[in-house]
Amino acid sequence: MGAEAERAAEAGEDWDDVTPDAARRLVCAAVEAFAERGYHATTTRDIASRAGMSPAALYIHYKTKEELLYRISGNGHEKALRIMGAAAEAEGSATERLRDAVHTFARWHAEHHTTARVIQYELQALGAEHYTEITDLRRRTDRLLRQIIQDGADSGEFQADDVPGTTLAVLSLCVDVARWFSSDGARTPDEVGALYAGLVLRMVGADAV
Amino acid sequence: MGAEAERAAEAGEDWDDVTPDAARRLVCAAVEAFAERGYHATTTRDIASRAGMSPAALYIHYKTKEELLYRISGNGHEKALRIMGAAAEAEGSATERLRDAVHTFARWHAEHHTTARVIQYELQALGAEHYTEITDLRRRTDRLLRQIIQDGADSGEFQADDVPGTTLAVLSLCVDVARWFSSDGARTPDEVGALYAGLVLRMVGADAV
Repeated sequence: MGAEAERAAEAGEDWDDVTPDAARRLVCAAVEAFAERGYHATTTRDIASRAGMSPAALYIHYKTKEELLYRISGNGHEKALRIMGAAAEAEGSATERLRDAVHTFARWHAEHHTTARVIQYELQALGAEHYTEITDLRRRTDRLLRQIIQDGADSGEFQADDVPGTTLAVLSLCVDVARWFSSDGARTPDEVGALYAGLVLRMVGADAV
Repeated sequence: MGAEAERAAEAGEDWDDVTPDAARRLVCAAVEAFAERGYHATTTRDIASRAGMSPAALYIHYKTKEELLYRISGNGHEKALRIMGAAAEAEGSATERLRDAVHTFARWHAEHHTTARVIQYELQALGAEHYTEITDLRRRTDRLLRQIIQDGADSGEFQADDVPGTTLAVLSLCVDVARWFSSDGARTPDEVGALYAGLVLRMVGADAV
Protein backbone atom coordinates (compact mmCIF):
# COMPACT_ATOMS: atom_id res chain seq x y z
CA MET A 1 0.00 0.00 0.00
CA GLY A 2 1.43 3.39 -0.98
CA ALA A 3 1.91 6.17 1.55
CA GLU A 4 -1.09 8.10 0.29
CA ALA A 5 -3.47 5.13 0.22
CA GLU A 6 -2.25 4.10 3.65
CA ARG A 7 -2.92 7.53 5.03
CA ALA A 8 -6.37 7.62 3.49
CA ALA A 9 -7.25 4.20 4.92
CA GLU A 10 -5.94 5.14 8.33
CA ALA A 11 -7.76 8.46 8.29
CA GLY A 12 -10.98 6.75 7.17
CA GLU A 13 -11.18 4.38 10.10
CA ASP A 14 -10.40 7.19 12.53
CA TRP A 15 -13.38 9.30 11.64
CA ASP A 16 -16.37 6.97 11.55
CA ASP A 17 -18.12 9.16 14.10
CA VAL A 18 -17.95 12.28 11.91
CA THR A 19 -21.19 12.79 9.96
CA PRO A 20 -22.45 13.47 7.38
CA ASP A 21 -20.21 11.72 4.89
CA ALA A 22 -19.09 15.02 3.32
CA ALA A 23 -17.83 16.31 6.68
CA ARG A 24 -15.96 13.05 7.23
CA ARG A 25 -14.34 13.24 3.79
CA LEU A 26 -13.20 16.77 4.56
CA VAL A 27 -11.62 15.73 7.85
CA CYS A 28 -9.76 12.87 6.12
CA ALA A 29 -8.59 15.20 3.37
CA ALA A 30 -7.42 17.77 5.94
CA VAL A 31 -5.41 15.16 7.88
CA GLU A 32 -3.72 14.06 4.65
CA ALA A 33 -2.96 17.61 3.54
CA PHE A 34 -1.69 18.78 6.94
CA ALA A 35 0.52 15.67 7.24
CA GLU A 36 1.99 16.13 3.78
CA ARG A 37 2.49 19.87 3.57
CA GLY A 38 1.91 21.25 7.07
CA TYR A 39 -1.02 23.31 8.33
CA HIS A 40 0.22 26.70 7.16
CA ALA A 41 0.99 25.51 3.62
CA THR A 42 -2.49 24.03 3.21
CA THR A 43 -5.45 26.09 2.00
CA THR A 44 -9.15 25.28 2.43
CA ARG A 45 -9.18 25.07 -1.37
CA ASP A 46 -6.55 22.26 -1.22
CA ILE A 47 -8.66 20.39 1.34
CA ALA A 48 -11.90 20.76 -0.63
CA SER A 49 -10.15 19.65 -3.79
CA ARG A 50 -8.69 16.53 -2.14
CA ALA A 51 -12.19 15.68 -0.91
CA GLY A 52 -13.58 16.20 -4.43
CA MET A 53 -15.63 19.18 -3.30
CA SER A 54 -15.86 22.89 -3.97
CA PRO A 55 -14.58 25.48 -1.45
CA ALA A 56 -18.21 26.57 -0.99
CA ALA A 57 -19.23 23.01 -0.09
CA LEU A 58 -16.43 22.87 2.51
CA TYR A 59 -17.70 26.10 4.03
CA ILE A 60 -21.09 24.48 4.81
CA HIS A 61 -19.33 22.11 7.21
CA TYR A 62 -16.33 24.06 8.47
CA LYS A 63 -16.05 27.82 8.60
CA THR A 64 -12.26 27.85 8.74
CA LYS A 65 -9.20 25.70 8.30
CA GLU A 66 -8.57 26.11 12.02
CA GLU A 67 -11.97 24.58 12.77
CA LEU A 68 -10.90 21.46 10.86
CA LEU A 69 -7.63 21.28 12.80
CA TYR A 70 -9.52 21.75 16.06
CA ARG A 71 -11.91 18.93 15.14
CA ILE A 72 -8.99 16.61 14.31
CA SER A 73 -7.03 17.58 17.41
CA GLY A 74 -10.05 17.35 19.73
CA ASN A 75 -11.06 13.95 18.43
CA GLY A 76 -7.51 12.57 18.77
CA HIS A 77 -6.91 14.01 22.21
CA GLU A 78 -10.26 12.69 23.46
CA LYS A 79 -9.35 9.21 22.25
CA ALA A 80 -5.95 9.42 23.94
CA LEU A 81 -7.64 10.51 27.17
CA ARG A 82 -10.13 7.63 26.98
CA ILE A 83 -7.34 5.09 26.48
CA MET A 84 -5.46 6.41 29.48
CA GLY A 85 -8.65 6.60 31.54
CA ALA A 86 -9.55 2.99 30.82
CA ALA A 87 -6.11 1.82 31.94
CA ALA A 88 -6.02 4.06 35.01
CA GLU A 89 -9.44 3.01 36.23
CA ALA A 90 -9.07 -0.73 35.53
CA GLU A 91 -8.78 -3.27 38.33
CA GLY A 92 -5.33 -4.53 39.12
CA SER A 93 -1.96 -3.54 40.51
CA ALA A 94 -0.12 -0.40 39.43
CA THR A 95 2.19 -2.67 37.44
CA GLU A 96 -0.71 -4.18 35.51
CA ARG A 97 -2.32 -0.80 34.91
CA LEU A 98 0.93 0.80 33.77
CA ARG A 99 1.62 -2.12 31.43
CA ASP A 100 -1.84 -1.76 29.93
CA ALA A 101 -1.64 2.05 29.68
CA VAL A 102 1.72 2.05 27.87
CA HIS A 103 0.78 -0.87 25.62
CA THR A 104 -2.45 0.72 24.39
CA PHE A 105 -1.13 4.29 24.28
CA ALA A 106 1.97 3.38 22.25
CA ARG A 107 -0.08 1.10 19.98
CA TRP A 108 -2.57 3.89 19.33
CA HIS A 109 0.23 6.25 18.29
CA ALA A 110 1.55 3.60 15.88
CA GLU A 111 -1.85 2.74 14.40
CA HIS A 112 -2.86 6.36 13.99
CA HIS A 113 0.56 7.81 13.29
CA THR A 114 -0.52 10.23 10.56
CA THR A 115 -3.30 11.75 12.65
CA ALA A 116 -1.10 11.75 15.73
CA ARG A 117 1.66 13.63 13.90
CA VAL A 118 -0.75 16.33 12.80
CA ILE A 119 -2.11 16.61 16.33
CA GLN A 120 1.31 16.88 17.94
CA TYR A 121 3.11 19.08 15.44
CA GLU A 122 0.34 21.59 14.70
CA LEU A 123 -0.67 22.33 18.28
CA GLN A 124 0.59 25.90 17.97
CA ALA A 125 -1.67 26.54 14.98
CA LEU A 126 -4.83 26.22 17.11
CA GLY A 127 -6.66 29.41 18.06
CA ALA A 128 -6.22 30.59 21.67
CA GLU A 129 -9.51 29.17 23.01
CA HIS A 130 -9.12 25.86 21.26
CA TYR A 131 -5.52 25.64 22.39
CA THR A 132 -6.59 26.07 26.01
CA GLU A 133 -9.25 23.39 25.64
CA ILE A 134 -6.83 20.89 24.06
CA THR A 135 -4.17 21.66 26.64
CA ASP A 136 -6.70 20.76 29.30
CA LEU A 137 -7.30 17.34 27.68
CA ARG A 138 -3.53 16.80 27.58
CA ARG A 139 -3.20 17.74 31.23
CA ARG A 140 -5.93 15.26 32.20
CA THR A 141 -4.21 12.45 30.25
CA ASP A 142 -0.93 13.32 31.92
CA ARG A 143 -2.57 13.32 35.35
CA LEU A 144 -4.06 9.84 34.85
CA LEU A 145 -0.68 8.38 33.94
CA ARG A 146 1.02 10.19 36.79
CA GLN A 147 -1.50 8.74 39.22
CA ILE A 148 -0.71 5.18 38.11
CA ILE A 149 3.00 5.82 38.62
CA GLN A 150 2.36 7.53 41.96
CA ASP A 151 0.22 4.56 43.11
CA GLY A 152 3.07 2.21 42.27
CA ALA A 153 5.58 4.41 44.09
CA ASP A 154 3.30 4.64 47.16
CA SER A 155 2.69 0.91 47.31
CA GLY A 156 6.39 0.17 46.87
CA GLU A 157 5.80 -1.63 43.56
CA PHE A 158 7.86 1.00 41.72
CA GLN A 159 11.09 2.77 42.51
CA ALA A 160 10.31 6.11 40.91
CA ASP A 161 12.13 8.97 42.67
CA ASP A 162 10.87 11.63 40.27
CA VAL A 163 7.23 10.85 39.48
CA PRO A 164 6.52 13.95 37.31
CA GLY A 165 9.77 13.45 35.37
CA THR A 166 9.07 9.76 34.85
CA THR A 167 5.51 10.54 33.71
CA LEU A 168 6.85 13.06 31.21
CA ALA A 169 9.35 10.54 29.83
CA VAL A 170 6.75 7.76 29.49
CA LEU A 171 4.27 9.99 27.67
CA SER A 172 7.02 11.34 25.44
CA LEU A 173 8.20 7.85 24.56
CA CYS A 174 4.68 6.82 23.50
CA VAL A 175 3.89 10.02 21.60
CA ASP A 176 7.12 9.87 19.62
CA VAL A 177 6.06 6.51 18.18
CA ALA A 178 3.94 8.60 15.78
CA ARG A 179 7.11 10.22 14.40
CA TRP A 180 9.16 7.12 13.66
CA PHE A 181 6.51 4.44 13.11
CA SER A 182 6.11 3.14 9.58
CA SER A 183 3.67 0.50 8.41
CA ASP A 184 6.53 -0.93 6.35
CA GLY A 185 8.74 -1.23 9.43
CA ALA A 186 9.85 -4.30 11.33
CA ARG A 187 7.25 -4.11 14.09
CA THR A 188 3.46 -4.09 14.20
CA PRO A 189 1.67 -1.54 16.39
CA ASP A 190 0.92 -4.29 18.91
CA GLU A 191 4.57 -5.37 19.03
CA VAL A 192 5.61 -1.77 19.66
CA GLY A 193 3.06 -1.62 22.49
CA ALA A 194 4.41 -4.82 24.08
CA LEU A 195 8.06 -3.74 23.72
CA TYR A 196 7.36 -0.33 25.24
CA ALA A 197 5.29 -1.72 28.12
CA GLY A 198 8.22 -3.94 29.09
CA LEU A 199 10.78 -1.13 28.80
CA VAL A 200 8.65 1.25 30.86
CA LEU A 201 8.08 -1.28 33.64
CA ARG A 202 11.84 -1.57 33.97
CA MET A 203 12.18 2.20 33.80
CA VAL A 204 9.98 2.59 36.89
CA GLY A 205 11.79 -0.23 38.64
CA ALA A 206 8.69 -2.44 38.80
CA ASP A 207 9.10 -5.69 40.71
CA ALA A 208 8.97 -9.00 38.93
CA VAL A 209 9.58 -7.90 35.35
CA MET B 1 12.96 36.20 26.74
CA GLY B 2 10.17 35.96 24.14
CA ALA B 3 9.81 32.93 21.89
CA GLU B 4 11.19 34.75 18.87
CA ALA B 5 14.20 36.22 20.65
CA GLU B 6 14.89 32.86 22.22
CA ARG B 7 14.84 31.15 18.86
CA ALA B 8 17.12 33.77 17.37
CA ALA B 9 19.61 33.42 20.22
CA GLU B 10 19.52 29.66 20.02
CA ALA B 11 19.89 29.68 16.25
CA GLY B 12 22.76 32.18 16.49
CA GLU B 13 24.92 30.06 18.73
CA ASP B 14 24.26 27.00 16.58
CA TRP B 15 25.71 28.41 13.41
CA ASP B 16 29.02 30.00 14.36
CA ASP B 17 30.74 27.84 11.78
CA VAL B 18 28.65 29.15 8.87
CA THR B 19 30.44 31.95 7.04
CA PRO B 20 30.25 34.63 5.76
CA ASP B 21 27.98 36.47 8.14
CA ALA B 22 25.24 36.86 5.49
CA ALA B 23 25.05 33.08 4.98
CA ARG B 24 24.83 32.58 8.73
CA ARG B 25 22.02 35.14 9.04
CA LEU B 26 20.12 33.33 6.31
CA VAL B 27 20.45 29.97 8.05
CA CYS B 28 19.21 31.48 11.33
CA ALA B 29 16.29 33.11 9.52
CA ALA B 30 15.42 29.85 7.77
CA VAL B 31 15.41 27.88 11.07
CA GLU B 32 13.07 30.46 12.59
CA ALA B 33 10.74 30.51 9.60
CA PHE B 34 10.61 26.72 9.19
CA ALA B 35 9.95 26.29 12.93
CA GLU B 36 7.15 28.85 12.94
CA ARG B 37 5.35 28.12 9.70
CA GLY B 38 6.74 24.83 8.38
CA TYR B 39 9.02 24.31 5.38
CA HIS B 40 6.32 24.27 2.72
CA ALA B 41 4.66 27.47 3.94
CA THR B 42 7.98 29.36 3.89
CA THR B 43 9.28 31.09 0.76
CA THR B 44 12.86 32.15 0.05
CA ARG B 45 11.44 35.68 0.04
CA ASP B 46 10.26 35.19 3.67
CA ILE B 47 13.72 33.97 4.66
CA ALA B 48 15.53 36.83 2.93
CA SER B 49 13.19 39.33 4.50
CA ARG B 50 13.72 37.92 8.02
CA ALA B 51 17.46 38.19 7.44
CA GLY B 52 17.05 41.80 6.26
CA MET B 53 18.20 40.89 2.75
CA SER B 54 16.83 40.85 -0.79
CA PRO B 55 15.84 37.58 -2.51
CA ALA B 56 18.72 38.21 -4.94
CA ALA B 57 21.19 38.45 -2.04
CA LEU B 58 19.90 35.12 -0.67
CA TYR B 59 20.45 33.52 -4.05
CA ILE B 60 24.19 34.32 -3.91
CA HIS B 61 24.51 31.97 -0.91
CA TYR B 62 21.78 29.39 -1.43
CA LYS B 63 20.27 28.41 -4.76
CA THR B 64 17.09 26.97 -3.26
CA LYS B 65 15.09 26.73 -0.08
CA GLU B 66 15.90 23.02 -0.03
CA GLU B 67 19.62 23.82 0.04
CA LEU B 68 19.04 25.81 3.23
CA LEU B 69 17.10 22.93 4.80
CA TYR B 70 19.85 20.52 3.77
CA ARG B 71 22.48 22.76 5.34
CA ILE B 72 20.50 22.97 8.61
CA SER B 73 19.75 19.25 8.64
CA GLY B 74 23.30 18.23 7.75
CA ASN B 75 24.82 20.45 10.40
CA GLY B 76 22.44 19.17 13.10
CA HIS B 77 22.80 15.53 12.19
CA GLU B 78 26.59 15.81 12.12
CA LYS B 79 26.57 17.31 15.59
CA ALA B 80 24.28 14.52 16.85
CA LEU B 81 26.62 11.94 15.33
CA ARG B 82 29.67 13.57 16.96
CA ILE B 83 27.98 13.56 20.39
CA MET B 84 27.12 9.90 20.07
CA GLY B 85 30.60 9.07 18.71
CA ALA B 86 32.34 10.78 21.62
CA ALA B 87 30.26 8.78 24.12
CA ALA B 88 30.64 5.49 22.26
CA GLU B 89 34.40 5.78 21.92
CA ALA B 90 35.12 7.03 25.43
CA GLU B 91 36.87 4.90 28.01
CA GLY B 92 34.69 3.20 30.59
CA SER B 93 32.05 0.57 31.11
CA ALA B 94 28.96 0.27 28.91
CA THR B 95 26.99 1.75 31.82
CA GLU B 96 29.23 4.84 31.95
CA ARG B 97 29.16 5.25 28.17
CA LEU B 98 25.38 4.85 27.97
CA ARG B 99 24.88 7.34 30.81
CA ASP B 100 27.10 9.85 29.01
CA ALA B 101 25.48 9.23 25.60
CA VAL B 102 21.92 9.72 26.85
CA HIS B 103 22.83 12.69 29.03
CA THR B 104 24.54 14.62 26.23
CA PHE B 105 22.11 13.55 23.49
CA ALA B 106 19.00 14.50 25.47
CA ARG B 107 20.62 17.75 26.63
CA TRP B 108 21.50 18.67 23.05
CA HIS B 109 17.88 18.17 21.96
CA ALA B 110 16.74 20.44 24.80
CA GLU B 111 19.33 23.16 24.16
CA HIS B 112 18.76 23.16 20.41
CA HIS B 113 15.08 22.30 20.41
CA THR B 114 14.05 24.70 17.66
CA THR B 115 16.71 23.47 15.25
CA ALA B 116 16.08 19.87 16.27
CA ARG B 117 12.35 20.19 15.56
CA VAL B 118 13.01 21.52 12.06
CA ILE B 119 15.48 18.71 11.44
CA GLN B 120 13.12 15.99 12.64
CA TYR B 121 9.82 17.21 11.22
CA GLU B 122 11.00 18.35 7.79
CA LEU B 123 13.04 15.29 6.87
CA GLN B 124 10.60 14.40 4.08
CA ALA B 125 11.09 17.80 2.47
CA LEU B 126 14.73 17.03 1.59
CA GLY B 127 15.53 16.16 -2.01
CA ALA B 128 16.19 12.47 -2.73
CA GLU B 129 20.00 12.67 -2.68
CA HIS B 130 20.14 14.81 0.41
CA TYR B 131 17.61 12.56 2.11
CA THR B 132 19.83 9.53 1.45
CA GLU B 133 22.87 11.34 2.82
CA ILE B 134 21.06 12.44 6.00
CA THR B 135 19.58 8.98 6.49
CA ASP B 136 23.10 7.61 6.42
CA LEU B 137 24.16 10.00 9.23
CA ARG B 138 21.11 8.88 11.24
CA ARG B 139 21.96 5.23 10.68
CA ARG B 140 25.52 5.81 11.91
CA THR B 141 24.28 7.54 15.07
CA ASP B 142 21.87 4.69 15.66
CA ARG B 143 24.62 2.11 15.17
CA LEU B 144 26.89 3.79 17.74
CA LEU B 145 24.18 3.74 20.39
CA ARG B 146 23.23 0.17 19.54
CA GLN B 147 26.86 -0.87 19.98
CA ILE B 148 26.99 0.57 23.49
CA ILE B 149 23.82 -1.32 24.43
CA GLN B 150 25.10 -4.48 22.76
CA ASP B 151 28.41 -4.20 24.66
CA GLY B 152 26.48 -3.97 27.93
CA ALA B 153 24.31 -6.95 26.99
CA ASP B 154 27.40 -8.99 26.02
CA SER B 155 29.29 -8.17 29.21
CA GLY B 156 26.23 -8.93 31.35
CA GLU B 157 26.04 -5.33 32.59
CA PHE B 158 22.62 -4.89 30.93
CA GLN B 159 19.59 -7.10 30.61
CA ALA B 160 18.44 -6.03 27.18
CA ASP B 161 16.62 -8.83 25.37
CA ASP B 162 15.79 -6.75 22.33
CA VAL B 163 18.83 -4.58 21.55
CA PRO B 164 17.48 -2.97 18.33
CA GLY B 165 14.11 -2.23 19.99
CA THR B 166 15.79 -0.78 23.06
CA THR B 167 18.08 1.36 20.88
CA LEU B 168 15.06 2.67 18.99
CA ALA B 169 13.27 3.57 22.22
CA VAL B 170 16.31 5.34 23.72
CA LEU B 171 16.91 7.43 20.58
CA SER B 172 13.21 8.23 20.36
CA LEU B 173 13.09 9.33 23.99
CA CYS B 174 16.00 11.73 23.47
CA VAL B 175 14.79 13.11 20.12
CA ASP B 176 11.31 13.83 21.46
CA VAL B 177 12.82 16.18 24.05
CA ALA B 178 12.92 18.70 21.18
CA ARG B 179 9.12 18.53 20.90
CA TRP B 180 8.17 19.12 24.52
CA PHE B 181 11.13 21.07 25.88
CA SER B 182 10.52 24.69 26.75
CA SER B 183 13.04 27.15 28.12
CA ASP B 184 10.29 28.33 30.48
CA GLY B 185 9.75 24.78 31.78
CA ALA B 186 10.64 23.27 35.14
CA ARG B 187 13.89 21.62 34.05
CA THR B 188 17.14 22.85 32.53
CA PRO B 189 18.63 20.96 29.57
CA ASP B 190 21.24 19.49 31.91
CA GLU B 191 18.57 18.30 34.37
CA VAL B 192 16.68 16.63 31.52
CA GLY B 193 19.92 14.91 30.50
CA ALA B 194 20.54 13.63 34.03
CA LEU B 195 16.92 12.45 34.49
CA TYR B 196 16.93 10.62 31.16
CA ALA B 197 20.31 9.00 31.74
CA GLY B 198 18.99 7.52 34.99
CA LEU B 199 15.73 6.33 33.42
CA VAL B 200 17.53 4.72 30.49
CA LEU B 201 20.01 2.88 32.71
CA ARG B 202 17.05 1.34 34.50
CA MET B 203 15.36 0.59 31.17
CA VAL B 204 18.35 -1.51 30.08
CA GLY B 205 18.50 -3.19 33.48
CA ALA B 206 21.96 -1.80 34.26
CA ASP B 207 23.52 -3.05 37.48
CA ALA B 208 24.10 -0.71 40.36
CA VAL B 209 21.73 2.12 39.48
